[in-house]
Amino acid sequence: MLHGLERLIDLALAEDIATGDITTNALIAPDARGQGVIVAKAPMVVAGLMVARRVFKRLDAELRVVEMVAEGQQAAPGDTLMTIEGRMAALLTAERTALNFLQRLCGIATHVRRYVDALPDTGVRLVDTRKTTPGWRALEKYAVRVGGAANHRFNLSDGILIKDNHIAACGGIAAAVDRARRAAPHSLKIEVETETLAEVEAALDAGADIIMLDNMGPEAIRAAVDLVAGRALVEISGGVDRDKLETLAACGADIISIGALTHAARAVDISMRIDASEDRPA
Amino acid sequence: MLHGLERLIDLALAEDIATGDITTNALIAPDARGQGVIVAKAPMVVAGLMVARRVFKRLDAELRVVEMVAEGQQAAPGDTLMTIEGRMAALLTAERTALNFLQRLCGIATHVRRYVDALPDTGVRLVDTRKTTPGWRALEKYAVRVGGAANHRFNLSDGILIKDNHIAACGGIAAAVDRARRAAPHSLKIEVETETLAEVEAALDAGADIIMLDNMGPEAIRAAVDLVAGRALVEISGGVDRDKLETLAACGADIISIGALTHAARAVDISMRIDASEDRPA
Amino acid sequence: MLHGLERLIDLALAEDIATGDITTNALIAPDARGQGVIVAKAPMVVAGLMVARRVFKRLDAELRVVEMVAEGQQAAPGDTLMTIEGRMAALLTAERTALNFLQRLCGIATHVRRYVDALPDTGVRLVDTRKTTPGWRALEKYAVRVGGAANHRFNLSDGILIKDNHIAACGGIAAAVDRARRAAPHSLKIEVETETLAEVEAALDAGADIIMLDNMGPEAIRAAVDLVAGRALVEISGGVDRDKLETLAACGADIISIGALTHAARAVDISMRIDASEDRPA
Amino acid sequence: MLHGLERLIDLALAEDIATGDITTNALIAPDARGQGVIVAKAPMVVAGLMVARRVFKRLDAELRVVEMVAEGQQAAPGDTLMTIEGRMAALLTAERTALNFLQRLCGIATHVRRYVDALPDTGVRLVDTRKTTPGWRALEKYAVRVGGAANHRFNLSDGILIKDNHIAACGGIAAAVDRARRAAPHSLKIEVETETLAEVEAALDAGADIIMLDNMGPEAIRAAVDLVAGRALVEISGGVDRDKLETLAACGADIISIGALTHAARAVDISMRIDASEDRPA
Amino acid sequence: MLHGLERLIDLALAEDIATGDITTNALIAPDARGQGVIVAKAPMVVAGLMVARRVFKRLDAELRVVEMVAEGQQAAPGDTLMTIEGRMAALLTAERTALNFLQRLCGIATHVRRYVDALPDTGVRLVDTRKTTPGWRALEKYAVRVGGAANHRFNLSDGILIKDNHIAACGGIAAAVDRARRAAPHSLKIEVETETLAEVEAALDAGADIIMLDNMGPEAIRAAVDLVAGRALVEISGGVDRDKLETLAACGADIISIGALTHAARAVDISMRIDASEDRPA
Amino acid sequence: MLHGLERLIDLALAEDIATGDITTNALIAPDARGQGVIVAKAPMVVAGLMVARRVFKRLDAELRVVEMVAEGQQAAPGDTLMTIEGRMAALLTAERTALNFLQRLCGIATHVRRYVDALPDTGVRLVDTRKTTPGWRALEKYAVRVGGAANHRFNLSDGILIKDNHIAACGGIAAAVDRARRAAPHSLKIEVETETLAEVEAALDAGADIIMLDNMGPEAIRAAVDLVAGRALVEISGGVDRDKLETLAACGADIISIGALTHAARAVDISMRIDASEDRPA
Repeated sequence: MLHGLERLIDLALAEDIATGDITTNALIAPDARGQGVIVAKAPMVVAGLMVARRVFKRLDAELRVVEMVAEGQQAAPGDTLMTIEGRMAALLTAERTALNFLQRLCGIATHVRRYVDALPDTGVRLVDTRKTTPGWRALEKYAVRVGGAANHRFNLSDGILIKDNHIAACGGIAAAVDRARRAAPHSLKIEVETETLAEVEAALDAGADIIMLDNMGPEAIRAAVDLVAGRALVEISGGVDRDKLETLAACGADIISIGALTHAARAVDISMRIDASEDRPA
Repeated sequence: MLHGLERLIDLALAEDIATGDITTNALIAPDARGQGVIVAKAPMVVAGLMVARRVFKRLDAELRVVEMVAEGQQAAPGDTLMTIEGRMAALLTAERTALNFLQRLCGIATHVRRYVDALPDTGVRLVDTRKTTPGWRALEKYAVRVGGAANHRFNLSDGILIKDNHIAACGGIAAAVDRARRAAPHSLKIEVETETLAEVEAALDAGADIIMLDNMGPEAIRAAVDLVAGRALVEISGGVDRDKLETLAACGADIISIGALTHAARAVDISMRIDASEDRPA
Repeated sequence: MLHGLERLIDLALAEDIATGDITTNALIAPDARGQGVIVAKAPMVVAGLMVARRVFKRLDAELRVVEMVAEGQQAAPGDTLMTIEGRMAALLTAERTALNFLQRLCGIATHVRRYVDALPDTGVRLVDTRKTTPGWRALEKYAVRVGGAANHRFNLSDGILIKDNHIAACGGIAAAVDRARRAAPHSLKIEVETETLAEVEAALDAGADIIMLDNMGPEAIRAAVDLVAGRALVEISGGVDRDKLETLAACGADIISIGALTHAARAVDISMRIDASEDRPA
Repeated sequence: MLHGLERLIDLALAEDIATGDITTNALIAPDARGQGVIVAKAPMVVAGLMVARRVFKRLDAELRVVEMVAEGQQAAPGDTLMTIEGRMAALLTAERTALNFLQRLCGIATHVRRYVDALPDTGVRLVDTRKTTPGWRALEKYAVRVGGAANHRFNLSDGILIKDNHIAACGGIAAAVDRARRAAPHSLKIEVETETLAEVEAALDAGADIIMLDNMGPEAIRAAVDLVAGRALVEISGGVDRDKLETLAACGADIISIGALTHAARAVDISMRIDASEDRPA
Repeated sequence: MLHGLERLIDLALAEDIATGDITTNALIAPDARGQGVIVAKAPMVVAGLMVARRVFKRLDAELRVVEMVAEGQQAAPGDTLMTIEGRMAALLTAERTALNFLQRLCGIATHVRRYVDALPDTGVRLVDTRKTTPGWRALEKYAVRVGGAANHRFNLSDGILIKDNHIAACGGIAAAVDRARRAAPHSLKIEVETETLAEVEAALDAGADIIMLDNMGPEAIRAAVDLVAGRALVEISGGVDRDKLETLAACGADIISIGALTHAARAVDISMRIDASEDRPA
Repeated sequence: MLHGLERLIDLALAEDIATGDITTNALIAPDARGQGVIVAKAPMVVAGLMVARRVFKRLDAELRVVEMVAEGQQAAPGDTLMTIEGRMAALLTAERTALNFLQRLCGIATHVRRYVDALPDTGVRLVDTRKTTPGWRALEKYAVRVGGAANHRFNLSDGILIKDNHIAACGGIAAAVDRARRAAPHSLKIEVETETLAEVEAALDAGADIIMLDNMGPEAIRAAVDLVAGRALVEISGGVDRDKLETLAACGADIISIGALTHAARAVDISMRIDASEDRPA
């Protein structure tokens, strides 16, 4: 289960249902049954069906939900993604919330897949950042994985990333790395953000495990990679867009991190058709 | 205050800080002070500064936060949006969460403003839908207003919207409207979704207060508007994009609802620069 | 499910059970079984059995609960309302909380039914107000419906009701209605509280959808109804008691709202008898 | 502070404000100021002003709230109970919730005072029961004290009350009392519910600290009191109404418990007048 | 169910799992199955198996959990306490939290049992205090009972304990007891803390139900017991350790309360072995 | 602020105060004032004063709290740790909860300090484990740092620790490490638990960043350290007690992890004296 998902679903259902779906409550018989069919309306990489499943189940644990495609699979317009069978009222009330989750998660996975497809096979690893929608960190990082990229640290406590303000506060890279090593659990690597080759050298000397090259051009990156020579992981970061990927991937770094994987994705078009069932439950 | 905002900020801070900002805790002296300056990196309509304010205040109620532009104002790259002064550690720990809120809310307001600017002044009202990011309903509807458009119903309990499944379940539009009127509070208007002129007529006869024209072309819309003749509000809905706005606005309807106002917006680029202060608190 | 009911049941069980039912824990064998029979001790309209059901199920999901009368049905002293079979300890611990919910909900439904029965059949609609027990809004409005009356708006966000302070702040009825129309979702009707015929006229001119006549006598009400002439709904409000119902209903208004439906109801007498079972579970 | 009060106020404000007070938000300037005056509209014993205070403060911590009468004091129609000064919007949004708390708490205190006044001064103690509104236990027991009566146990964990089902399960009063004494903390008294003199005798023999006489007539009560002869506290319970108080009080028991103190009280009429201030804050 | 246990388990799982068990998620197939065997590594009194059960069930409700010994039973090193069968990933993720609960609860029960075994059979009752681990009150008091001792009051609301500050504030023992009797529910006994025989006498005269002898030596205790002569319960308290138990038990008091029962216990050694199953679920 | 502390304090106050401190409420005037003095009754290392501070402040934000010693400082019996001045009732009600936190946190810091003092200065790092009291992870790890040792990973998501079950599931160490490296964020080190030199070698070959030697003797440890030769961190784990520290520290490993740092600590004796103030607030 994804971290915090239940609380986000709670929030989402509370904000949409509020004091009740008055239209459905007024018009749909409690025992009327139907089938919902969730359909792709655009080409997409599918992600988040288990979230939609949970939304429906929360409304009514008796709903029968069937995923029709696997996570990460490509879907074409018209493809059925999921079917849900059971109480019509639950289908109608859950519909919008379930689709709102799906359209965004599929949107991210689809967007990430385009980056992955544009990346030559040099062994470099594409990762996301912490530029995610507040409340959605675990979900969006999941969609990134489904899209085919990998995750950078999840939050401020599961990775050490020393930035310019930290360095300035400690009076230099060496002091900052040393202090971090003494204070933090030994299970975490120490990453240092650098902007010049001199800083790269200082970080290496200080024993950094990962060196982030912030907003450097291809030439500087290649020089940094040469300097590091395998003694630390090298991460390219800052202003990476899709058409630079080929050039950057050829520079020899280990990792390219891209905030746009999450923050520049748009929802994809997904809809749900609901058909009434002839039969009522026995 | 926006509905549910505190819970969303809780979720967002919890997911980013987790068990603590270990880098900052290890490297920044608890009494070190600094100033953060939030800067636009792209042209944008500003929205959500009070959310960023709350995020910073939650980390440290002593931070001094100053908004430098008003909500809804246009900002250019390089413009300062907000300054925050106080404990350096709080600035560093709150930075990403505050920016993640801001970049999305400004993104929506900016996106909406483009639609508003494309709309001729015919008195037609541009409104959003319930296609919002789960957990963000109130925030995104707020950004829509800041962008210059209006809101449709907030949730399933503050508006009656009778769709095809509801109609089918009741055996027709007349029965559905009648049942809704008897069951629901008299303070709510009754809206009916229609796809043909025959349905428009049936909805009118049933006494609907609002008639939604779902995915109709300009000609059908004009015919529907003529048929309604002021006896109900007319809402255009479905697949509206920006270049159709001028044509649709000329059709004489009262309202145009557009899901893309919220679900197709992207984050805009905003960053924060942090400067250390010379002086410590007395 | 009623909005917020789970949280209220949580609160109720927590406040009654606290650190445990020490008497039952000390004296009743964990596997002892019994049957509880909930019995009306006074004439009543039954409401809230599903709430009692949930209370019992929360204590022990294995309890078998059977409703013996339908919601809204009249019960006489001695009638069995519900039976519950299962672990004796759960029966004893849940008893008081379940009865406390039932006695109040049946009390309201019974009280409302007396008003409904006193109302001549003129088509006028009897509705409640927001004068409900804090925490019990959804439950009490439900009991009102079971009693046979209808609901006014549920809360401050699903209806617009412009009162004297709002009018004064805007500088007049016309300005207030206009501002409300521009700011609020178009799915909500606009109601204006009036005290004189001049105000009724101003509200009509401003295009109010509902006109509330606050504390007017029958003559003034009839004059207001004539003035409105079907152009808006007319709601009578303020100090309505049961013996005025016949007179008021004859005045031609559409709605009569009565706070006393909820705030003047008393609990009705309901008790539970518990019999031990001979047999233990297999 | 009363136990659980914050959670109940949360629930109450959430259910009334929902996604926002749209009328006030649309019509009242955020910096408009005013004064609210809460006025008794009927004779009453005042209780719960600190609850109303908290409701207002929750909306806006800057509101200045002044209690004009003391808890437990008698108020006449027209008496001012409380004034609140500050942001007009907060006054309007909080009004109904604050009054809904007050009208019920004053209603209970007023109702209880009538019982207290009807009780001759024999030293007998009038106490409530657990027949309270779910979610309101602490508040209603507080109002009972303000009204002049005392409290029975608050919940199932701070008192031992052995009833017929408990006795039957243990095979007799002696066994039940003995088992309770061994299992429960020694700081709690043991009360036994009895219906006959034989049971009273058995309870006494078993060493019960309190003997409840359930639904006995005056004669039986007097006999029981004689039998007990000061060796335990004697509590009269069951179907006590106000006109029996004088007779029962003369029977010599120590305590009379009355469920009607809480469950038969009605709200009293209280209203709030709001006046706009001329001046805005500097 | 123990009071507050669910919330503590929530807290415990959240703090250990955080954003996910990344090792297990990366390495264990979701449908891999296994069996966990929880084994005692030291001699112990078993307590808390149902807590471990709940931890496992929370991770995966499908796990089959079997307790192999009864609560309160003595276990030797190597004895199996519990087996758990089901999804391997759930076993691995829940393991540490389940063991952390068990090792502490068994530790307390084992520690308490040593005191119980050291107590001669004089009828004196050994009880705990409120010196428990915050958040663990109900659990630790449960383990005390399993270990063979009894509980003092659970919290500040289910017992009246008048200490020196209370006495000083009231101007004497008599006034304090009298005021407590008038204010508190009659179902609670009144206990007074005393340090001298004069205070014991004053407490007796005031009608205290329980007299606590705080930090008195055996001689003073015997004198106090003689003075009380059965008119109140006598509780020995303060600095009691195991080797004084025999002497103190002979002094004739009713109760000995010992904070060390909970606050001086250490965890006992318990481990879990996990074996993979050959077969996958059908 | 420590992660989750507010929730634990909530739980702790709720479980101790329950429906109210009835003794204090009955006997102490609301405006009576006093001073509490928290005093060490045994030698100890001080830890957790800010937790005690928060407990008092939660009861009454007006209390003035002054820490008299610094965290980590040694205190002797009789030393004052903290003074608290303000409302007497708040002092009395908060006392036990505040002391319960303090006695355990000081207990852990004191216990850890003994290990630290027994460790020769070889540069080896003493760290805790995840064997903490459920709900107390952040607090106990904090007390470990105050005591002078360091922390291992906080939870299952901020470190990768591959154990025998993980290895078996992947078919070997090489496959397990490889799979972990591909799945997990690159900011985390990979630790492998080993029991033989062959496993150490396999882990090294697989590129493990940390090698844990589980329950090995000094000789095997020295051999493992030689084999690793600085290519990974070496962690000694399992059954370490204080008298083995000197021998183990000489073996050349980088880290020694000890569960007993947290799970074998006992509370230390701390008490609070409360003096009434002469003066009341102006």
